[in-house]
Amino acid sequence: MNAEKTVKSVAPESRSPVPVAIVGASGYSGEELVRLLLTHPHAELVAVTSRQYAGQSLAQVFPRFASHPRAQTLRFTEPNADLLARQAQVVFLALPHGVAAEFAVPLLAQGCQVIDLSADFRLRSAAVYEEFYGHPHPAPELLAQAVYGLPELYREPLREARLIAAPGCYPTSILLPVVPLLRAGLIKPAGIIADSLSGVSGAGRKAEADYLFVECNESLRPYGVPKHRHLSEIEQELSLAAGTPVVIQFTPHLAPVNRGILTTLYLAPTKHFQQAAEASELGDQVVACYRAAYGKEPFVRLLAGKSLPDTKNVVGTNLIEIAWRLDPRTGRLIVMSAEDNLVKGASGQAIQCFNVRCGWPETAGLL
Amino acid sequence: MNAEKTVKSVAPESRSPVPVAIVGASGYSGEELVRLLLTHPHAELVAVTSRQYAGQSLAQVFPRFASHPRAQTLRFTEPNADLLARQAQVVFLALPHGVAAEFAVPLLAQGCQVIDLSADFRLRSAAVYEEFYGHPHPAPELLAQAVYGLPELYREPLREARLIAAPGCYPTSILLPVVPLLRAGLIKPAGIIADSLSGVSGAGRKAEADYLFVECNESLRPYGVPKHRHLSEIEQELSLAAGTPVVIQFTPHLAPVNRGILTTLYLAPTKHFQQAAEASELGDQVVACYRAAYGKEPFVRLLAGKSLPDTKNVVGTNLIEIAWRLDPRTGRLIVMSAEDNLVKGASGQAIQCFNVRCGWPETAGLL
Amino acid sequence: MNAEKTVKSVAPESRSPVPVAIVGASGYSGEELVRLLLTHPHAELVAVTSRQYAGQSLAQVFPRFASHPRAQTLRFTEPNADLLARQAQVVFLALPHGVAAEFAVPLLAQGCQVIDLSADFRLRSAAVYEEFYGHPHPAPELLAQAVYGLPELYREPLREARLIAAPGCYPTSILLPVVPLLRAGLIKPAGIIADSLSGVSGAGRKAEADYLFVECNESLRPYGVPKHRHLSEIEQELSLAAGTPVVIQFTPHLAPVNRGILTTLYLAPTKHFQQAAEASELGDQVVACYRAAYGKEPFVRLLAGKSLPDTKNVVGTNLIEIAWRLDPRTGRLIVMSAEDNLVKGASGQAIQCFNVRCGWPETAGLL
Amino acid sequence: MNAEKTVKSVAPESRSPVPVAIVGASGYSGEELVRLLLTHPHAELVAVTSRQYAGQSLAQVFPRFASHPRAQTLRFTEPNADLLARQAQVVFLALPHGVAAEFAVPLLAQGCQVIDLSADFRLRSAAVYEEFYGHPHPAPELLAQAVYGLPELYREPLREARLIAAPGCYPTSILLPVVPLLRAGLIKPAGIIADSLSGVSGAGRKAEADYLFVECNESLRPYGVPKHRHLSEIEQELSLAAGTPVVIQFTPHLAPVNRGILTTLYLAPTKHFQQAAEASELGDQVVACYRAAYGKEPFVRLLAGKSLPDTKNVVGTNLIEIAWRLDPRTGRLIVMSAEDNLVKGASGQAIQCFNVRCGWPETAGLL
Repeated sequence: MNAEKTVKSVAPESRSPVPVAIVGASGYSGEELVRLLLTHPHAELVAVTSRQYAGQSLAQVFPRFASHPRAQTLRFTEPNADLLARQAQVVFLALPHGVAAEFAVPLLAQGCQVIDLSADFRLRSAAVYEEFYGHPHPAPELLAQAVYGLPELYREPLREARLIAAPGCYPTSILLPVVPLLRAGLIKPAGIIADSLSGVSGAGRKAEADYLFVECNESLRPYGVPKHRHLSEIEQELSLAAGTPVVIQFTPHLAPVNRGILTTLYLAPTKHFQQAAEASELGDQVVACYRAAYGKEPFVRLLAGKSLPDTKNVVGTNLIEIAWRLDPRTGRLIVMSAEDNLVKGASGQAIQCFNVRCGWPETAGLL
Repeated sequence: MNAEKTVKSVAPESRSPVPVAIVGASGYSGEELVRLLLTHPHAELVAVTSRQYAGQSLAQVFPRFASHPRAQTLRFTEPNADLLARQAQVVFLALPHGVAAEFAVPLLAQGCQVIDLSADFRLRSAAVYEEFYGHPHPAPELLAQAVYGLPELYREPLREARLIAAPGCYPTSILLPVVPLLRAGLIKPAGIIADSLSGVSGAGRKAEADYLFVECNESLRPYGVPKHRHLSEIEQELSLAAGTPVVIQFTPHLAPVNRGILTTLYLAPTKHFQQAAEASELGDQVVACYRAAYGKEPFVRLLAGKSLPDTKNVVGTNLIEIAWRLDPRTGRLIVMSAEDNLVKGASGQAIQCFNVRCGWPETAGLL
Repeated sequence: MNAEKTVKSVAPESRSPVPVAIVGASGYSGEELVRLLLTHPHAELVAVTSRQYAGQSLAQVFPRFASHPRAQTLRFTEPNADLLARQAQVVFLALPHGVAAEFAVPLLAQGCQVIDLSADFRLRSAAVYEEFYGHPHPAPELLAQAVYGLPELYREPLREARLIAAPGCYPTSILLPVVPLLRAGLIKPAGIIADSLSGVSGAGRKAEADYLFVECNESLRPYGVPKHRHLSEIEQELSLAAGTPVVIQFTPHLAPVNRGILTTLYLAPTKHFQQAAEASELGDQVVACYRAAYGKEPFVRLLAGKSLPDTKNVVGTNLIEIAWRLDPRTGRLIVMSAEDNLVKGASGQAIQCFNVRCGWPETAGLL
Repeated sequence: MNAEKTVKSVAPESRSPVPVAIVGASGYSGEELVRLLLTHPHAELVAVTSRQYAGQSLAQVFPRFASHPRAQTLRFTEPNADLLARQAQVVFLALPHGVAAEFAVPLLAQGCQVIDLSADFRLRSAAVYEEFYGHPHPAPELLAQAVYGLPELYREPLREARLIAAPGCYPTSILLPVVPLLRAGLIKPAGIIADSLSGVSGAGRKAEADYLFVECNESLRPYGVPKHRHLSEIEQELSLAAGTPVVIQFTPHLAPVNRGILTTLYLAPTKHFQQAAEASELGDQVVACYRAAYGKEPFVRLLAGKSLPDTKNVVGTNLIEIAWRLDPRTGRLIVMSAEDNLVKGASGQAIQCFNVRCGWPETAGLL
C-alpha cells in the first residue's frame, strides 16, 4: 500500500484553506493552538473537542477569541476519531501522554495527517518509552514513521511526514542550542548540564495545591530532580547529533511567571581556550556554527553584543533566543536560551511543522 | 595597644541592651536591619542614617514599623562617624561597596564594633578586590582583622572580631552547601557549577528601567555572565575549605519575586557510585557530613525525604534550606539551597554575627 | 453560676505564659496564628490541631518556623475538645464557618477562653446568620455572650469576654474607617459604598482551578457581586454605630498579590462643602474625629499629607492605614484603608484581642 | 478649500496597503501599535520614530518582532514631520500630552491623516484642557475638527475624520458601559462613581522608583485621588450622552499586573426596583439597551449568566467585557468592565479607528 496515496492530499499549491481539528483543545496548549489556527491564513478550524466543554462555543470557553466570527459558531464536541477523520485533513492532538496514541491510530488509518503534541511518538524506542513513562507504549508500530517535529533539525523528513511528534518544551530549549555544536564537534558529548526555569503553565490546568497562586507566587523551586521524563527525548536527539550515546544532567525549576522557559547550558568545548587567541578563534567557530545552522531560520534569534536571552522578549511568539559566552576561567561554553513554553515549546512549533508539511511559508500564522 | 581594651566592651552577660546604629538604613538591607533590630531583645537602635531621609522618623520612611514606639521617635540623621561612635557600641554598615570602608575606618578607630554588609572587607587580598571591583581597596590595612561573617563556618573568630564582613547573598547560598563537602573530601574541588536565581530586591532600590515592574514581571533572564563580582569571595572561601585554589562557574538569574535566592549546585563526588551499593554508601556519607556540620545549627534546615528547597519556605526568616540528590546516570551530586537574600543573605546573617559576637543566644531576635 | 469563677483565670499580672491552642492550624490564618504565638512573650503554644497533618511537627508542616525550638517538638494532633480544654486556657479556632461552633460549645463549657476567627459568633441575630450563611445557627444560645473582636471599638467588653468573635478581613477594612465618622454624625448612614481589593490568600488554601497561579496572575476581577456574606456583620456594626439600620454597597475584587486588602469608601458628608471654607472646616472635623478615635491606637496609622494607603506598607503587620480626601466636585468624602487580610484582618487582630483580654500590653507579640 | 480634496486619498476600495508611520514608537503604546501594524492586512509600516533608538532596527529594539521581515529592515528615525508626511498617508502619534500637537499641526497641513493617542485633541474645550493639563492648549484651532476615536460611539464621524483623538484607557473602560445607559435614560446622570484598577504599563516606561518591581509587586494602592486628568474627557462625553453636565467620582488604583483595566461602576437607575417584578423589568431594559448598543459590535462582549469581567480574558485583545448586576438592597446598578489598557484602551482602538476611517473591515488586524 502506498502511503502517499492513502494520506489525504494536502497540496502545497492549494489556495483553499486546509480543514484542521484540535483534539483536547481545553488545556493551555490546546487554547494556544486555537489562537494560532483561528488566524492562520491557510487553515480552517473545523472541529475542537473537549469532554468537559462539549456543547459550548469557543467564545464561551475562551472569551479572548470572542471577536472572531468562528469562535461564535464553532462548538466543542466530544472527541470521536471517525467523525474527526471525516471533517479534517490535519488533526492536532493536545492530549495527555498515553491518550494521544488512542486517537492517532484510527486517524492515521483513515488518512488524516496527525500532529501530536504529547510525548507518545517522540521516542524511537518503545523500551525507552516504557522506562520513562512507566507503561508499555500504546502503539509501537507507529514509532518508525513518526517524525520529530523540530523543523530546524528535521525539515526535510517533515515535508513528507504523516505523523509528527512535536517536541516537549524543555527539549526544544535544549536541543536547538546544543545540536549544532555537537554536530560540528565543537563541544564534548559528555558532561552536558541543562538548568531550566519554567513558567507555571507548563504544569497544565490542574487544580493541585502545588500550583495555587499563593503557593507559586514569591516561590522559586526545583522539581523532578534528578530524572525528568523529558530526558528521554533530549538524550535521544543529542545522541543522534553526537553519533554517540549522550547522557545529560537536567534540572527543571518552577518560577512565578505564566509562560516562558529559560535554559542555561554548561558545555565543555573540545578545544582549550585559556589563551586570548584561542578563545577568540573558538568564539569565531561558535558564531560560524550557529550562523550556518540558524542564520536563515525565522524563529531562531542569535543574540550578539551584550544581549542575553529574556523570556519576556519571546512570550507570545514562536521565537527562541540564543546567546553564548566563553568563560576562560573555567574552560566552559555557557549557552542560554529563552522561549515561550506554549508557543515554540508546544503549539507554535506544531503550527510551524504544519506549515512545513503543507508547503506554506514557514512563518504563516506565526508572525 | 591592646585591641581588647580599646574596643568598647560588649559584655555577654550584660542585661542592658547594646546601643546599635545603622548607617545607610534606607535601602532594602537597611530596612531589614531596622526590622530585626527594633524587636531584638538585646539591642537598642539609637541611630539610623540616610542622606535622603535625614530628619524624617522611621515610621514616616518605613510605615510598616509605625506601631513600634521607637519608630515614632527615632529620626534619620546625616551620617557622621564621630557622632555615631559616641552613640553606639555596634554599628551596622549597609552602604555601597567602597563607601563602607570610609565609615569603618573612623568607627573602628573610636572603638566601635563594625558589622559591614558591603563587600569591602570580605576579601583577604586587596589585589583580588581591585581585580573584581575595579578600584584599589580603600583600607587594605584592615583586611587582616576582618572576619568573614558566616557563623556556621567562622563562629569562633567571630566571637572576638572587631570588624565583621557579612557575606554576600549569593555566596551564602553557595558556601553553606559546598564547604562541608569540600572539607570532608567528598567532592572534587574542580568543576563546581552554581546556578542561582534571585529576587529583584537583590538589585537594590535603584530607579533603573531594567528593574521596572513591567520589565521584570513575566521575565526570566540571566545576567552578569560569566564573571560576577561575588565570585571573588566565593572562590576565596571554597579555596580555603579545599586547601587548594578553586575556580567555579557561577550564573545568576533574575526572577520576578521580591525576595529569595535559589541555588542549584552541580558537584563531582570523589567516588564513583554507579552501583546501587556505592550510591547508598556515598549517600550515607553526604548525610553524615551535613549532619556533622549543621545538625545543631538553628538556621540550616537539612531537607529529608522528597522535599526540595523552596524560597517561599524561607522568605522573612534567617533559614537556609539544603537538599541533595545523587544522580547515578551522570555521577553527579546535585545540591540545592534556598534562602532569603535580605535575611540569611544579608541582614539576618549580620544579626546572627552580632549575637555571636555579643554572646547572646544565636537566635535572639531572629525567630 | 458566676462566669467569673467558671472561666479559667487569666490573671493579667501573671508572669508565666498562658497555655494556648489553635484548632485548625493548617490554613493560612492558622499558620499566621502559629507565627504570632510562637514568639508571643506571654503565650505558650501547647497544642495545634489538624486532621490532615496529625502526627507531624510544626517544623515539618511549616518549614519557616524550623529554627524555633517549639516547632521541632510540637506536633499536630487530631482535634479533641476535651483534650484541648485540659491543655489550654485560651483556644483559637481557625475553622470553617459552621464548624467553629462545634468546638466553641464544649470548650466554653469546660472553662476555656475561646477566640474564634470564623463568622460563627460575629452576628447578634441567629436569623441574619441563617439568611447569609444558608443554615440555622449551630449555637444561638452563645450569641449573646460573644464579643465582636475589634479592639478599637470593643476594648472594654473584650476585657471580660469569654467568647470573642474576631471580625472578617473585609469588615475590619471597612468598619475602622467608617464607624467613627458615623458615630460623630459626619457622614450620612445611607448610600455608603465599599469597593475592596483582596489578595488570593483570602480564598484559603483550596485546590480550586479559579485560584491556580495562571488563573490569578495577570488577572483583575470582581466576585460575589452584589451580596457577599460579610455584608451581614458590616451592616450590623455600622447600624449600631449609626443608631439606625444601615445598608451598604460592597464589591470585592481579587488581585494577584498573596496578601492585603485595599478598600476605597465613598461616603456622603452630612454637610455641604463646595465653598473652600466649608471644605476646610469639614476637613478639620474629619481629622479631629479620626484623631479622637485612633490617635492613641497603636495599630491604626492615619496618613497625612499626600500619602495614600498601600498594602505593601502593612503586609506582615497588624497595622491598618487610613487616608481620606474631600472631593468638592462631587461633595463626597473618599476614605481609603489598607491592611493585611491575614494579620489585622484575621490572626493579628485575634492576638490583639487576646492581649486585651489577658491584660498584656496590646502590642505584645505584634511588633 | 475643500478638505476632502486636500487630505491624501485613503480609498476604501484600494487593494494596496496604506503607508503608515508611528511617531514615538518606543513606549508601551507605540510598541503595541508596531505589533498590530506589522501584521495588519491593509497597512504597510513605513516609518517609526524614536529619538532614543534612532538608527536601530525594530528587531533590535523590540526582539519579539524579530521573525517579521519588516522588523529586520525598518529602522527607527529621528522624528521629522516633513519627512513623515512624504512617506506616510496615516500617522499615529504615540507621544506625551502636549508634544503630540506639535506634530499634528504640520502633518495635517501636509495632508496626512493623524491618529493621536495622546490627550491633546480629546477635549472640545481649550479651557477645560488648560484646567486639567496645566498649560494652554498648543493648537486650539484644531479641536473643532478632531473626532473622539471611540468607534462604538462615533463611527460615522470617524469615517470622514482627518484628526482622530483616540480615547484614554480609563475613559474607554467607563464610557462604553455608561453612555448607552445615559442615552436611554436608564440611569441618573448624577452620582456616578467609577472605581478602576490598572496594570503598571499604564504608567509608561518611566524609570521612577514608584514603578520598580519591588515597589509594585505585592502592592495595591490608589493614586491621583480625587482629581485625575482623565476626568475631563470622561465628563465631556458623559455630559454629551446625558444632555446635561455630568460630574463623576473616579478613583484609579494600581495593581501588580502588566496590563489590564478593571472598572466597577456604581450607578443609580432612574426607576425604583425593590419589588422583584420591577427588578425583572429593569433588568430586561438594561439587557435591551446594551444589546441595541453593542449587540453587533465585534469588540464589546456582553457577559451573561454568572460571568463577571476578568482582565485576563481580554489582555492582548481589543475586547472590552461588560457585565452588570442590579442590587435590590441598595437600589443601585453595578456595571463592571475589563479591557487591555494598551489595546482597547489605546493602540487597538487606534487601529479600529484606522479601519473605520479607511473603510476596511473593522476587525482587520485585530483578531
